[in-house]
Amino acid sequence: MIISNLFWVVPIASVIALVFAYIFFRQMMKEDEGTDTMRKIALHVRKGAMSYLKQQYKIVAIVFLVLLVLFAFLAFGLGVQNGWTPFAFLTGGFFSGLAGFFGMKTATYASARTANAAKNSLNHGLKVAFRSGAVMGLVVVGLAVLDVSLWYLVLNYFIDEPDQTHKLIIITTTMLTFGMGASTQALFARVGGGIYTKAADVGADLVGKVEAGIPEDDPRNPATIADNVGDNVGDVAGMGADLYESYAGSILATAALGASAFATIDANMQYKAVLAPMLIAAIGIILSIIGIYVVKTKDGATMKNLLRSLGTGVNLSSVLIALATFVILHSLQITNWVGISFSVISGLAAGVIIGQSTEYFTSHSYRPTQRVSESSQTGPATVIISGVGLGMISTAIPVITIAIAILMAFLCAINFDVANMLTAQNIQLGLYGIGIAAVGMLSTLGITLATDAYGPIADNAGGNAEMSHLGPEVRKRTDALDSLGNTTAATGKGFAIGSAALTALALLASYIEEIKIGLLRIGEKVITLTDGSTIEVAKANILNFMDYYHVNLMNPIVLVGIFIGAMMAFLFSGLTMNAVGRAAQKMVEEVRRQFREIAGIMEGKAEPDYARCVAISTRGAQIEMILPSVLAIVIPIATGLVLGVAGVLGLLVGGLSAGFVLAIFMANSGGAWDNAKKYIEEGNFGGKGSANHKAAVVGDTVGDPFKDTSGPSLNILIKLMSMVSIVMAGVTVAYSLF
Amino acid sequence: MIISNLFWVVPIASVIALVFAYIFFRQMMKEDEGTDTMRKIALHVRKGAMSYLKQQYKIVAIVFLVLLVLFAFLAFGLGVQNGWTPFAFLTGGFFSGLAGFFGMKTATYASARTANAAKNSLNHGLKVAFRSGAVMGLVVVGLAVLDVSLWYLVLNYFIDEPDQTHKLIIITTTMLTFGMGASTQALFARVGGGIYTKAADVGADLVGKVEAGIPEDDPRNPATIADNVGDNVGDVAGMGADLYESYAGSILATAALGASAFATIDANMQYKAVLAPMLIAAIGIILSIIGIYVVKTKDGATMKNLLRSLGTGVNLSSVLIALATFVILHSLQITNWVGISFSVISGLAAGVIIGQSTEYFTSHSYRPTQRVSESSQTGPATVIISGVGLGMISTAIPVITIAIAILMAFLCAINFDVANMLTAQNIQLGLYGIGIAAVGMLSTLGITLATDAYGPIADNAGGNAEMSHLGPEVRKRTDALDSLGNTTAATGKGFAIGSAALTALALLASYIEEIKIGLLRIGEKVITLTDGSTIEVAKANILNFMDYYHVNLMNPIVLVGIFIGAMMAFLFSGLTMNAVGRAAQKMVEEVRRQFREIAGIMEGKAEPDYARCVAISTRGAQIEMILPSVLAIVIPIATGLVLGVAGVLGLLVGGLSAGFVLAIFMANSGGAWDNAKKYIEEGNFGGKGSANHKAAVVGDTVGDPFKDTSGPSLNILIKLMSMVSIVMAGVTVAYSLF
Repeated sequence: MIISNLFWVVPIASVIALVFAYIFFRQMMKEDEGTDTMRKIALHVRKGAMSYLKQQYKIVAIVFLVLLVLFAFLAFGLGVQNGWTPFAFLTGGFFSGLAGFFGMKTATYASARTANAAKNSLNHGLKVAFRSGAVMGLVVVGLAVLDVSLWYLVLNYFIDEPDQTHKLIIITTTMLTFGMGASTQALFARVGGGIYTKAADVGADLVGKVEAGIPEDDPRNPATIADNVGDNVGDVAGMGADLYESYAGSILATAALGASAFATIDANMQYKAVLAPMLIAAIGIILSIIGIYVVKTKDGATMKNLLRSLGTGVNLSSVLIALATFVILHSLQITNWVGISFSVISGLAAGVIIGQSTEYFTSHSYRPTQRVSESSQTGPATVIISGVGLGMISTAIPVITIAIAILMAFLCAINFDVANMLTAQNIQLGLYGIGIAAVGMLSTLGITLATDAYGPIADNAGGNAEMSHLGPEVRKRTDALDSLGNTTAATGKGFAIGSAALTALALLASYIEEIKIGLLRIGEKVITLTDGSTIEVAKANILNFMDYYHVNLMNPIVLVGIFIGAMMAFLFSGLTMNAVGRAAQKMVEEVRRQFREIAGIMEGKAEPDYARCVAISTRGAQIEMILPSVLAIVIPIATGLVLGVAGVLGLLVGGLSAGFVLAIFMANSGGAWDNAKKYIEEGNFGGKGSANHKAAVVGDTVGDPFKDTSGPSLNILIKLMSMVSIVMAGVTVAYSLF
Repeated sequence: MIISNLFWVVPIASVIALVFAYIFFRQMMKEDEGTDTMRKIALHVRKGAMSYLKQQYKIVAIVFLVLLVLFAFLAFGLGVQNGWTPFAFLTGGFFSGLAGFFGMKTATYASARTANAAKNSLNHGLKVAFRSGAVMGLVVVGLAVLDVSLWYLVLNYFIDEPDQTHKLIIITTTMLTFGMGASTQALFARVGGGIYTKAADVGADLVGKVEAGIPEDDPRNPATIADNVGDNVGDVAGMGADLYESYAGSILATAALGASAFATIDANMQYKAVLAPMLIAAIGIILSIIGIYVVKTKDGATMKNLLRSLGTGVNLSSVLIALATFVILHSLQITNWVGISFSVISGLAAGVIIGQSTEYFTSHSYRPTQRVSESSQTGPATVIISGVGLGMISTAIPVITIAIAILMAFLCAINFDVANMLTAQNIQLGLYGIGIAAVGMLSTLGITLATDAYGPIADNAGGNAEMSHLGPEVRKRTDALDSLGNTTAATGKGFAIGSAALTALALLASYIEEIKIGLLRIGEKVITLTDGSTIEVAKANILNFMDYYHVNLMNPIVLVGIFIGAMMAFLFSGLTMNAVGRAAQKMVEEVRRQFREIAGIMEGKAEPDYARCVAISTRGAQIEMILPSVLAIVIPIATGLVLGVAGVLGLLVGGLSAGFVLAIFMANSGGAWDNAKKYIEEGNFGGKGSANHKAAVVGDTVGDPFKDTSGPSLNILIKLMSMVSIVMAGVTVAYSLF
């Protein structure tokens, strides 16, 4: 088939991504790392980060082993699962872990170099930090697309099925299970990293800033290295693994939805539908690299200039991808290519709007956050009340945006017919449209993740400059870079949540595909519908399954599932909140102990025991994440076994809807508290050191776990629960009670 | 029909309730109101409360007028709505308002009398306060059941329909719309009252306790009367209207579900199914009165004794009602009477378990709240973090309880058949089971609401004793009564949320009945199902409607509805949080102004201008509730017009699930913060006045709007959105886009 040649664009794009990542990495490594102190501090952070990663990978390895044995038993022992799942699971986890390793390694090498480059000029600093961030971005998209294309080639070679359309369905539903590996890895990186970073941050602040009255990033604070390690662990590795999962998940889910939706047309069209999301992702990589090259600034740039220069890069990539989508889908000659292009664009646009809304609600350039600053005049309680109020209200725009994007993506992808819109064929096409909208939103990931990973690098550069006592001019530049990083971190969080929601929705839709495969595997050939008629499983459409499993809102099992799903979002957040509280408590005790027992710390004569603080955060994170992680994996399985398919779908929808809204609330409240404090520090409402400032610091501390632990962990929860359900679909159909 | 004689038990029970309410009121009024100072203070509070109520009823009157015109236009102008709706709407609102008026009048007369009775003995104080609370409980259940039985008689007389089964369906679906009046009244009472009480409380605390350093309820604080008024406005009138709505809503929804589910059996059985919820409610009233008479205590009683004496009353009523249910349903000879009795009991039991769980998570006798106290050692930020964590985790037990209750209630009410459980007939029977479980949970309302309304009376008695400088022995007794009130307030909140969720679920189920009636009204005789077949609307069952409207989880319209519903819960909470913040701000400014401008306040020589503070809270509450109220009414209508029936059902389910969980989180976090502070005040972790205490006060202040404004307001939101959708069902089927 001539179209097959087009497939090679996908692995080629992944190689290009990895090559550019390597180039950017080499360029960064050639930069000077600065003075001995700067090198020493960077080394401390690097060693801390790597020791955390090592510890985490050890535990991940154990968990992977356990799950591997389970999956192998389900596949080869009971025969209720796909035999490829164990292997796909492994590679998904491996590549995600590898991306985290490269990204964090790069980030920890880049921080001192960024600080040193800032000695020359702001532009030089920005370039080093941003290109280093781009390493993470490109490694993530490169490895994800590589994994997708390798598995496609392997399965295409090995799966022996004469019927082409059926073969493609098997290939895509099998590939979907490799997302489970990425999900499990992301769970550890995001939740563990999130607990780590905020335990260190809150602990460092509570004793350092509040009790001892020394500034942030002061080298006398024993927890300061752990705090800097945390930025890398949480915001680089955690964010990277989270988005790796969304990125791979959206491509795989869309491919599976495409294989099913277009199977009824013909094998050729079906193949194109499977190829489309991969091609859009592949072209997105190349256009992201172009965007990365556009980002630069002049010295003496204001915050606005800096934001604009990053914005120019991202927007350029977005516009180019939008245009390229039309070209790709047109040249594929896919049915309804104009409509599907608009589905892609609805996802792209939603990402941009959610980012803008996040900026509006969390930046102190706008009224909402300023109002939180203002409320500090009546003390910490009103800071908390107004921040919670802001976060809750801020959920409206992202939810309405996603709602419109979902409807747009659906309606554009179907055969429009007002009289009879929700036919089975149309629902399958429409769900494909929603999937490809998620791919569209994530197609800019190469550059958007670069702007995310840039943040902690700049933050660490600032910390390094502070600890190395660099001159005020340099500090001013690193502060400007850091401040920019805070804004990109906030918008990046909005983007991560939005894309997680769309990805989870695509996974939800493809869950039914797995159920179908699962039924065939256990030998169920026929299902009986409500009206008493029967239909062959192989020929049943999505509406037949909705009918067979009674997945309607009057089925109490669905309703109970939705209730439990909504509860899971809150329970998971509560557990991670408490985890931070407890782990921070241990850090506080350790820092107090060091201040008490190590003579000369406060005078700067003795070096604190940084490594012990790193170890405490690491241990705390690993222990504290056990319970929430186990719940996130066990509850969907248990729901499947007790309540069956209808209960699982309820669980996923309830978790997705409540989790999405809760995540936005927590991220935006946290971001606003952070910036409300900064606004006061800039001299408003009494400035630094005033009672108002103290009140705002309380808000900021509460906001830390909100925005960096519990909020982002919800992204993982909503995707992981879907992924677990998908992988366990065979078990659910074979053994469920209802 | 012989069975018709049984109906008269219902109005008779309502008259008994009202007679006993009057007896308790007279008994209380015969008590001595104490010294001149005590009378004066009570008069201030009474006048303040009444002036608030007057103002609120004025605005409610305007809103009722607008809605009345709208409903009349829809019914008589466009013909898309039932002609009885406008009148039913009016009486529902009128009786709810009347209950609030009587309840609050009683409470404000009772507070000084309770304080005075506490001079004699603890038991005397308890008796006066509790029996006065019982007035509210009995007036609510009495008027609700009176309204139900009157309307039943009126409609039975006027509706001219020869087919008995069809007539009963019309009667019950028409009666359902009177819930809209109760909902609208509850919206104002609960949301307005909630904003009022916390604006006054937070404002009074911020200036009085924090800035001026004077104790709570100090007569020198100009906001102290407003604060005491707030207890009556929010916790008596607001709580009462909230539960009036749940109580009436659950009876009406169950009657409508019963009329539809049992119509296929025969007219006789259908009539019994409609009668059953009314009879259970009626017998519940009488058994609640018995429970009320059991509550008493001895002087020198510990907190445990007090709790036990209230518990004995409530538990006795619960057990008696459980037994009576079997008797009632057996003598009705209703199909599957044993199963349906267990449905009732699953609701009753769920109410008790949710109350227990609330107590565990919010009482400082247990570890969770003690841990929040402990976290005060590292400052206010960790108090907030641990309180938020606690609240989120505390959602698990209530959600699982409700989930099990829903499944139990459903499964017990159906014709059990593992192979084919979810038939249309079974789903209708099962939903009736869920409805009657809600009735079961609420059947103890006469006494549970008495324990709720008792709280603010005891609180006000304590305030009165403080301001009137009564002796330490009396203060100790009123403190004990007040402390008991805090616990009953927390468990009462759990009960209110749980019953709101079950009621909303019953309303959700009966929504489909209204859609059916709506279709018939606009002349749609036939619907076309997915498989192309057609069915007469009059004969269509619930699964046919699920199919016709595509109410399954793969329909993006349903998913979008669920997202918007979940968002509504957060948006509504955020708006009410901010409302409290803003209104409290105005109170703070007023109190500061009085301290500054009225000479001699601090020395106790000049009386502060209490009335102005009352007026400010009143005005603040009325203005601030406009936006959230309008949203709660407009969004379901807009969703219906744009997204149709599938979208509305999604909206209601999303709002119900996320709103229920969010409400529990907010109520329990708030309760825990309150009691964590009290635990410190009892001498733990440094005691009153310590830095830890200050940190805990921040938590308590944040918790005020959590537990008394935003959390309880969500009860209203989830019921009101259902009720609006039900009333607007005709408009939705006539004009919706999709």
